[in-house]
Amino acid sequence: MIGDKWTVMIVLTLVDQPRRFNEIKRINGGISQQMLSRTLSALERDGMLTRTVNPTIPPQVEYALTHLGQSLAGPINELGAWARSHILEIERNRLAFDEAKAKV
Amino acid sequence: MIGDKWTVMIVLTLVDQPRRFNEIKRINGGISQQMLSRTLSALERDGMLTRTVNPTIPPQVEYALTHLGQSLAGPINELGAWARSHILEIERNRLAFDEAKAKV
Repeated sequence: MIGDKWTVMIVLTLVDQPRRFNEIKRINGGISQQMLSRTLSALERDGMLTRTVNPTIPPQVEYALTHLGQSLAGPINELGAWARSHILEIERNRLAFDEAKAKV
Repeated sequence: MIGDKWTVMIVLTLVDQPRRFNEIKRINGGISQQMLSRTLSALERDGMLTRTVNPTIPPQVEYALTHLGQSLAGPINELGAWARSHILEIERNRLAFDEAKAKV
Protein backbone atom coordinates (compact mmCIF):
# COMPACT_ATOMS: atom_id res chain seq x y z
CA MET A 1 0.00 0.00 0.00
CA ILE A 2 2.55 2.61 1.09
CA GLY A 3 5.00 1.66 -1.68
CA ASP A 4 2.36 2.59 -4.21
CA LYS A 5 3.08 5.82 -6.09
CA TRP A 6 -0.51 7.16 -6.06
CA THR A 7 -0.93 6.46 -2.35
CA VAL A 8 2.16 8.61 -1.72
CA MET A 9 0.91 11.38 -4.03
CA ILE A 10 -2.64 11.47 -2.62
CA VAL A 11 -1.48 11.57 1.02
CA LEU A 12 0.77 14.53 0.11
CA THR A 13 -2.15 16.19 -1.72
CA LEU A 14 -4.37 16.00 1.39
CA VAL A 15 -1.75 16.76 4.03
CA ASP A 16 -2.58 20.49 4.15
CA GLN A 17 -6.36 20.37 3.79
CA PRO A 18 -9.37 18.26 2.86
CA ARG A 19 -10.13 18.28 -0.85
CA ARG A 20 -12.82 17.21 -3.28
CA PHE A 21 -12.40 14.44 -5.90
CA ASN A 22 -11.88 16.70 -8.89
CA GLU A 23 -9.40 18.89 -6.98
CA ILE A 24 -7.32 15.82 -6.12
CA LYS A 25 -7.54 14.65 -9.73
CA ARG A 26 -6.50 18.06 -11.10
CA ILE A 27 -3.52 18.31 -8.69
CA ASN A 28 -2.37 14.81 -9.70
CA GLY A 29 -2.63 15.38 -13.45
CA GLY A 30 -1.48 11.93 -14.46
CA ILE A 31 -4.00 9.87 -12.53
CA SER A 32 -7.04 8.30 -14.20
CA GLN A 33 -10.57 8.61 -12.75
CA GLN A 34 -10.59 4.87 -12.09
CA MET A 35 -7.18 4.78 -10.39
CA LEU A 36 -8.09 7.78 -8.20
CA SER A 37 -11.38 6.16 -7.11
CA ARG A 38 -9.66 2.87 -6.38
CA THR A 39 -6.82 4.50 -4.40
CA LEU A 40 -9.20 6.72 -2.40
CA SER A 41 -11.39 3.72 -1.44
CA ALA A 42 -8.32 1.68 -0.46
CA LEU A 43 -7.09 4.57 1.73
CA GLU A 44 -10.57 4.95 3.25
CA ARG A 45 -10.69 1.21 3.98
CA ASP A 46 -7.22 1.42 5.62
CA GLY A 47 -8.50 4.23 7.86
CA MET A 48 -6.08 6.70 6.30
CA LEU A 49 -8.78 9.15 5.18
CA THR A 50 -12.45 9.93 5.67
CA ARG A 51 -15.00 10.48 2.91
CA THR A 52 -17.68 13.05 3.81
CA VAL A 53 -20.76 13.77 1.66
CA ASN A 54 -21.83 17.38 2.24
CA PRO A 55 -25.62 17.85 1.82
CA THR A 56 -25.26 20.67 -0.74
CA ILE A 57 -27.08 20.65 -4.05
CA PRO A 58 -25.52 18.89 -5.81
CA PRO A 59 -24.00 16.92 -2.91
CA GLN A 60 -20.20 17.43 -2.56
CA VAL A 61 -17.84 14.65 -1.50
CA GLU A 62 -14.79 15.67 0.48
CA TYR A 63 -11.74 13.62 1.47
CA ALA A 64 -9.63 14.36 4.56
CA LEU A 65 -6.67 12.57 6.14
CA THR A 66 -7.29 10.93 9.51
CA HIS A 67 -4.70 11.07 12.32
CA LEU A 68 -3.29 7.81 10.90
CA GLY A 69 -3.07 9.35 7.44
CA GLN A 70 -1.39 12.48 8.77
CA SER A 71 1.20 10.31 10.57
CA LEU A 72 2.33 8.85 7.22
CA ALA A 73 3.09 12.32 5.89
CA GLY A 74 6.35 12.46 7.92
CA PRO A 75 8.12 9.47 6.31
CA ILE A 76 6.67 10.43 2.90
CA ASN A 77 8.01 13.98 3.21
CA GLU A 78 11.42 12.48 4.06
CA LEU A 79 11.26 10.49 0.83
CA GLY A 80 10.26 13.62 -1.06
CA ALA A 81 13.12 15.61 0.51
CA TRP A 82 15.55 12.83 -0.50
CA ALA A 83 14.26 12.98 -4.05
CA ARG A 84 14.51 16.75 -4.29
CA SER A 85 18.07 16.79 -2.92
CA HIS A 86 19.28 14.02 -5.25
CA ILE A 87 17.36 14.64 -8.47
CA LEU A 88 20.21 16.59 -10.12
CA GLU A 89 22.71 13.85 -9.30
CA ILE A 90 20.30 11.23 -10.70
CA GLU A 91 19.79 13.27 -13.89
CA ARG A 92 23.58 13.56 -14.35
CA ASN A 93 23.89 9.79 -13.83
CA ARG A 94 21.19 9.13 -16.43
CA LEU A 95 22.94 11.39 -18.96
CA ALA A 96 26.29 9.67 -18.39
CA PHE A 97 24.67 6.23 -18.57
CA ASP A 98 22.92 7.03 -21.88
CA GLU A 99 26.10 8.52 -23.39
CA ALA A 100 28.16 5.48 -22.38
CA LYS A 101 25.51 3.18 -23.81
CA ALA A 102 25.43 5.14 -27.08
CA LYS A 103 29.21 4.54 -27.51
CA VAL A 104 28.89 0.74 -27.16
CA MET B 1 11.02 6.30 -9.38
CA ILE B 2 11.16 6.26 -5.57
CA GLY B 3 7.39 5.93 -5.23
CA ASP B 4 7.61 2.65 -7.13
CA LYS B 5 7.03 -0.43 -4.98
CA TRP B 6 9.75 -2.60 -6.57
CA THR B 7 12.35 0.18 -6.34
CA VAL B 8 11.67 0.34 -2.60
CA MET B 9 11.83 -3.46 -2.23
CA ILE B 10 15.05 -3.86 -4.28
CA VAL B 11 16.90 -1.08 -2.42
CA LEU B 12 15.97 -2.80 0.86
CA THR B 13 17.10 -6.16 -0.55
CA LEU B 14 20.58 -4.77 -1.39
CA VAL B 15 21.06 -2.54 1.65
CA ASP B 16 23.02 -5.20 3.57
CA GLN B 17 25.07 -6.74 0.78
CA PRO B 18 25.52 -7.10 -2.97
CA ARG B 19 23.40 -9.87 -4.47
CA ARG B 20 22.96 -11.79 -7.72
CA PHE B 21 19.88 -11.57 -9.97
CA ASN B 22 18.31 -14.84 -8.88
CA GLU B 23 18.91 -14.09 -5.20
CA ILE B 24 17.11 -10.75 -5.56
CA LYS B 25 14.30 -12.47 -7.45
CA ARG B 26 13.94 -15.22 -4.81
CA ILE B 27 13.88 -12.68 -1.94
CA ASN B 28 11.19 -10.66 -3.74
CA GLY B 29 8.96 -13.62 -4.55
CA GLY B 30 6.25 -11.65 -6.31
CA ILE B 31 8.42 -9.94 -8.91
CA SER B 32 8.55 -11.15 -12.53
CA GLN B 33 11.84 -11.69 -14.39
CA GLN B 34 10.95 -8.83 -16.73
CA MET B 35 10.00 -6.37 -13.96
CA LEU B 36 13.18 -7.20 -12.01
CA SER B 37 15.37 -6.64 -15.09
CA ARG B 38 13.60 -3.39 -15.87
CA THR B 39 13.84 -2.08 -12.30
CA LEU B 40 17.51 -3.05 -11.95
CA SER B 41 18.42 -1.28 -15.21
CA ALA B 42 16.48 1.82 -14.17
CA LEU B 43 18.29 1.86 -10.82
CA GLU B 44 21.63 1.35 -12.57
CA ARG B 45 20.86 4.22 -14.96
CA ASP B 46 19.94 6.44 -11.97
CA GLY B 47 23.34 5.64 -10.41
CA MET B 48 21.64 3.89 -7.47
CA LEU B 49 23.42 0.57 -8.02
CA THR B 50 26.32 -0.96 -9.93
CA ARG B 51 26.18 -4.09 -12.06
CA THR B 52 29.39 -6.15 -11.98
CA VAL B 53 30.06 -9.17 -14.22
CA ASN B 54 32.45 -11.50 -12.40
CA PRO B 55 34.69 -13.48 -14.85
CA THR B 56 33.72 -16.87 -13.38
CA ILE B 57 32.53 -19.76 -15.55
CA PRO B 58 29.68 -19.22 -16.10
CA PRO B 59 30.04 -15.43 -15.58
CA GLN B 60 28.15 -14.15 -12.52
CA VAL B 61 26.38 -10.77 -12.42
CA GLU B 62 26.26 -9.00 -9.09
CA TYR B 63 24.30 -5.89 -8.08
CA ALA B 64 25.42 -3.54 -5.30
CA LEU B 65 24.05 -0.24 -4.02
CA THR B 66 26.17 2.85 -4.64
CA HIS B 67 26.59 5.59 -2.00
CA LEU B 68 23.54 7.26 -3.57
CA GLY B 69 21.55 4.05 -3.32
CA GLN B 70 22.59 3.53 0.30
CA SER B 71 21.46 7.08 1.13
CA LEU B 72 17.88 6.20 0.06
CA ALA B 73 17.78 3.34 2.55
CA GLY B 74 17.22 5.81 5.44
CA PRO B 75 13.91 7.31 4.25
CA ILE B 76 12.78 3.90 3.00
CA ASN B 77 13.48 2.30 6.37
CA GLU B 78 11.40 5.09 7.98
CA LEU B 79 8.52 4.16 5.67
CA GLY B 80 8.99 0.50 6.57
CA ALA B 81 9.05 1.30 10.29
CA TRP B 82 5.82 3.31 9.88
CA ALA B 83 4.19 0.37 8.13
CA ARG B 84 5.27 -2.14 10.75
CA SER B 85 4.04 0.05 13.63
CA HIS B 86 0.66 0.74 12.00
CA ILE B 87 -0.18 -2.52 10.23
CA LEU B 88 -2.37 -3.85 13.07
CA GLU B 89 -4.35 -0.59 13.20
CA ILE B 90 -4.79 -0.71 9.41
CA GLU B 91 -5.96 -4.34 9.57
CA ARG B 92 -8.50 -3.46 12.29
CA ASN B 93 -9.72 -0.55 10.13
CA ARG B 94 -10.11 -2.85 7.11
CA LEU B 95 -12.11 -5.36 9.17
CA ALA B 96 -14.41 -2.63 10.51
CA PHE B 97 -14.80 -1.11 7.03
CA ASP B 98 -15.74 -4.47 5.47
CA GLU B 99 -18.19 -5.29 8.29
CA ALA B 100 -19.87 -1.89 7.97
CA LYS B 101 -20.09 -2.32 4.20
CA ALA B 102 -21.62 -5.80 4.58
CA LYS B 103 -24.44 -4.32 6.70
CA VAL B 104 -25.41 -1.72 4.03
